[in-house]
Amino acid sequence: MPASVVQTAPNAAPARTAEVFRAAAELMVQKGYGGTSIGDIAQAVGMTKAGLYHHISGKQDLLFRILNYAMDELELIVTAPVRLIEDPEERLRQLMRLQIQGVVRYGLAFTVLFSEINHLAEAQQKEIRGRLNEHHALIRETLQELAEDGRLRRLDVNIATMHIMNAITGVARWKGEDFSKNEEHLVQETVAYTMAALLKPVK
Amino acid sequence: MPASVVQTAPNAAPARTAEVFRAAAELMVQKGYGGTSIGDIAQAVGMTKAGLYHHISGKQDLLFRILNYAMDELELIVTAPVRLIEDPEERLRQLMRLQIQGVVRYGLAFTVLFSEINHLAEAQQKEIRGRLNEHHALIRETLQELAEDGRLRRLDVNIATMHIMNAITGVARWKGEDFSKNEEHLVQETVAYTMAALLKPVK
Repeated sequence: MPASVVQTAPNAAPARTAEVFRAAAELMVQKGYGGTSIGDIAQAVGMTKAGLYHHISGKQDLLFRILNYAMDELELIVTAPVRLIEDPEERLRQLMRLQIQGVVRYGLAFTVLFSEINHLAEAQQKEIRGRLNEHHALIRETLQELAEDGRLRRLDVNIATMHIMNAITGVARWKGEDFSKNEEHLVQETVAYTMAALLKPVK
Repeated sequence: MPASVVQTAPNAAPARTAEVFRAAAELMVQKGYGGTSIGDIAQAVGMTKAGLYHHISGKQDLLFRILNYAMDELELIVTAPVRLIEDPEERLRQLMRLQIQGVVRYGLAFTVLFSEINHLAEAQQKEIRGRLNEHHALIRETLQELAEDGRLRRLDVNIATMHIMNAITGVARWKGEDFSKNEEHLVQETVAYTMAALLKPVK
């Protein structure tokens, strides 16, 4: 059951706005940002173009707001709860678990849409990249804690952070896979794979 | 030095064609498939639209031929040589090494362009996906050999195959990184990270 964000995820955006964001994201992923018109999006959400322009000032503004919305959700669903976890290994396991669940349940289109970030204005790109970097910093700092505890393998923490992000967001690019049936298996396998890559083997 | 494919890689396509493919791929990644016109591409390669239509029948045909070209290169540079390596661990290490080098040196735009595959006609998509699946099968079969040798951790070989592909191709999406200076470091870290995830620890 592909549940709507507004029903199941903590969410600051009004329900109708979230619906518009979701439909627009799916269309932009399917047709590409350049190939999607405001008219296409209006049609997909059952609005007139004038009605849609009541909510947004244009396509670039819409993309910016969608990516900000996706970052809001990431913070609500993943970042805020895992920051409360003291043990770095458990924090990283939960971060991966929650973020993979978020991607599979609500965020396949949103995740892929980040590749369109270069269509934003300079200042908008900077804001979104800043928020992404904050998320990467949480992972990197968690790895550094593990290193200080003597639990991490000898590895480049920056490169490992990107591999962790790739493993989480990569599932959104596995076309033709239906994860809703096997979400728990996917989560367990991905967490185990990543932890084996990161942690020293237990003697 | 971002060397041209035609100078340094074994290559079946004539030099001029390869140049057109490269410029078109870079433009399509930058502006999106839907946002790139044949006129844009002609301008980027210093040709008239009529001149470009002498080589290709249209934008979809061009995308199809670029993705096939990228798969040709992958087979020449990576797949064919590593198939000759008998030991599965060494085969996988070399596959990762050669493919990451290929992505960083010649293939950043080509790699990202695969996300536009849904713009191809049904039969074209099927052909490209078939070639990609062959590449995944090589990785999967190598993991199965490692499992038969008792060297692989208990893991889902299909999911692990996708994580390996994500780790290799993911580097093409790390914006703002200059790998040409640190290519060897990136290769070593990525191979070590992946091997630690896959192989049982040595007692």
